[in-house]
Amino acid sequence: MKAEIIAVGTELLLGQVVNTNATFLSEELAGLGIDVYYHSVVGDNPERLASLLALADQRSELIVLCGGLGPTEDDLTKQVTAAHVGQELIRDELGYQKLLSFFEKRQRPMTENNLLQTLIFKDGISLQNSTGLAVGIFYTSDKGNHYLLLPGPPNELKPMFYNEVVPLLKEKFQKKDQLISRVLRFYGIGESQLVTDLADLIQGQTNPTIAPYAKPNEVTLRLTVKTTDEAQGLAQLDDLEKIIQERVGEFFYGYGEENSLANVVVELLKKNQQTLTAAESLTAGAFQAALGDISGVSEVFPGGFVTYSAETKANFLGIEKEFLEQVGTVSQECVEQMAINARKLAQTDYAVAFSGVAGPNELEGQPAGTVWIALANEQGVHSQNYHFTRDRSYIRHSAVMTGLDLIRRALLNR
Amino acid sequence: MKAEIIAVGTELLLGQVVNTNATFLSEELAGLGIDVYYHSVVGDNPERLASLLALADQRSELIVLCGGLGPTEDDLTKQVTAAHVGQELIRDELGYQKLLSFFEKRQRPMTENNLLQTLIFKDGISLQNSTGLAVGIFYTSDKGNHYLLLPGPPNELKPMFYNEVVPLLKEKFQKKDQLISRVLRFYGIGESQLVTDLADLIQGQTNPTIAPYAKPNEVTLRLTVKTTDEAQGLAQLDDLEKIIQERVGEFFYGYGEENSLANVVVELLKKNQQTLTAAESLTAGAFQAALGDISGVSEVFPGGFVTYSAETKANFLGIEKEFLEQVGTVSQECVEQMAINARKLAQTDYAVAFSGVAGPNELEGQPAGTVWIALANEQGVHSQNYHFTRDRSYIRHSAVMTGLDLIRRALLNR
Repeated sequence: MKAEIIAVGTELLLGQVVNTNATFLSEELAGLGIDVYYHSVVGDNPERLASLLALADQRSELIVLCGGLGPTEDDLTKQVTAAHVGQELIRDELGYQKLLSFFEKRQRPMTENNLLQTLIFKDGISLQNSTGLAVGIFYTSDKGNHYLLLPGPPNELKPMFYNEVVPLLKEKFQKKDQLISRVLRFYGIGESQLVTDLADLIQGQTNPTIAPYAKPNEVTLRLTVKTTDEAQGLAQLDDLEKIIQERVGEFFYGYGEENSLANVVVELLKKNQQTLTAAESLTAGAFQAALGDISGVSEVFPGGFVTYSAETKANFLGIEKEFLEQVGTVSQECVEQMAINARKLAQTDYAVAFSGVAGPNELEGQPAGTVWIALANEQGVHSQNYHFTRDRSYIRHSAVMTGLDLIRRALLNR
Repeated sequence: MKAEIIAVGTELLLGQVVNTNATFLSEELAGLGIDVYYHSVVGDNPERLASLLALADQRSELIVLCGGLGPTEDDLTKQVTAAHVGQELIRDELGYQKLLSFFEKRQRPMTENNLLQTLIFKDGISLQNSTGLAVGIFYTSDKGNHYLLLPGPPNELKPMFYNEVVPLLKEKFQKKDQLISRVLRFYGIGESQLVTDLADLIQGQTNPTIAPYAKPNEVTLRLTVKTTDEAQGLAQLDDLEKIIQERVGEFFYGYGEENSLANVVVELLKKNQQTLTAAESLTAGAFQAALGDISGVSEVFPGGFVTYSAETKANFLGIEKEFLEQVGTVSQECVEQMAINARKLAQTDYAVAFSGVAGPNELEGQPAGTVWIALANEQGVHSQNYHFTRDRSYIRHSAVMTGLDLIRRALLNR
């Protein structure tokens, strides 16, 4: 099936927003065996969108539109597409009830224009939005072309795609050939190194295919097999994964598109029935906030400390001021004491501590990116010194990811 | 002048690479007063690129192509565009000499295919590449359409654009008009409400224009004026902003594309020479991490507490266990005590405390999204109860943003 993606929004044409939706959708559609031949971006302009739809009708079977489903005057994707295919817009009852209850809870008046968000095509299928109010639409025209209308904000588009669109596309278009995918996640190895280590596999790939994808501080590999026999397809993926694990398994941490290092850490702690705390200086709560994003973390994480200044390192954690002045706060001695004391105070099995220089300026004569991370448990404490690069935000993110990987390896006895 | 951007590369259609070139070029062209009406992406396929060029010829005066200028078989942008406009390809002498000296320096043999990179149109202008080997092209057809061919790697495209393209476009097309933009940021008002309050301004907009844009938990308005006189343009923006501020100024918090609530809070604290701490339950460090992302925060933020469990609320903050059992942790009494005690322990002017239900499950009989936020200062403590919606991640983000806005208003005595 030939597909194309049309993103609607003047902000994209002004260069205010990057079209990451096209990238996300392309990757996901490729995984479903759907070939994307074109991306387009058009502004919030009905004539230009209509002419693009006319063109898309001639060259594609699946036309994915994203953006322009919101409540404002600029949001015209539904109206223009409805006119293009000759569909009446009607209210989606589920979306409407959700809209009402949203404004009721917030105790705010609902303005009339919000109703636009709940409109769908008369003969279309509504796609519910778990993280926003705009309802999506799937519609097949008399000519047999398929239209998919999705919201623009990525935090609405992605869940709608996974929850509503994937099952629909699988049901409608899955040939006897089915595609089975497996996502492997790696931390601690760069994309170029991973691709070099697997160069022969990637060059020779036909079925299964291997698609590497770089994310901030991690890399994923998506293995996809096209097969008529599920058991055989899974066996092919197992064989390929085995070769990959032999080469770069050291850096592998988990499976799945929606997984994360924080999630793996929380799952391992639950499984081991162990608990974790943290004392954070330069990361200022970001490590604990990453844990906090995982549902059910309360079983294994009672809380911890943000000790940004020397005073809070002394007062909250009970580290002697003279000692801090002597060793400095960006030091092995300081970070190890932070971990030891935090663990005692929180009465947990493990504690991770962070101290370093987030930048842009140096601190205690040490350059931005210098970070100490310590891990304490019943047996004692270990620490290591890192030199992260790029900007303040990336340095802090690198520290958080490294801390998560340290505790993950400790929980696996690696 | 109407322009469009065509990116060439199968890797974009597979979702392996994000089309940041289109974003960069759009922003830069807008700054030069050139209107971008379309973005397209097409794979390394000569027929599809040729048909896109035919379409572009009909709807645009400036056609910017990026990618496909390299030495491999996939790189066909020059050849296809040359055939489209009927131009012969000839060698660019400067680019050729640079290519030879590159391979000489590296002491590596130059393979024949590299010569492709130095070809330009017979009647075109060559654009030198300061960070790579592929020469770019500017060409004006007999019909009067302009073609700009640029390399795909951003580290080659950007310097070529700044060094070679900007002077050329300014010389050829600069009108006396220039664009001046101003971004206003709002918190606490939804996009649909904002647009309703400003409906007459938005409907009547010509010059200046008003572009609303929704981000998670905030909305921005970009005002843009096209003018030949900078002082007059700024005065027009001032006049428009005055009307907007009269209507929705209550929700305005700052200027600029790169600004944030956390940034405004840190700047206000610095200006007032005051300090802040926090005690976080459901947000688990995310409030403090947001502050930590701002450079120079150490002046105003010594650290704080993550008290996820009842035990850490008792042990870290010294709240009586019996009291917690009596009032519950998701309660006004608990969150106010958290703020009061955190402020004393950290010896700060202000403390913000968060306690609530991040979900997905309810807690102490209260549904997901129920959140108490307290603010303590020398005069005492205030708190409020909120009901946030959507998923766990959004509920936590909403709580963080609300906490930031609370302290911002307190610092402004509002």
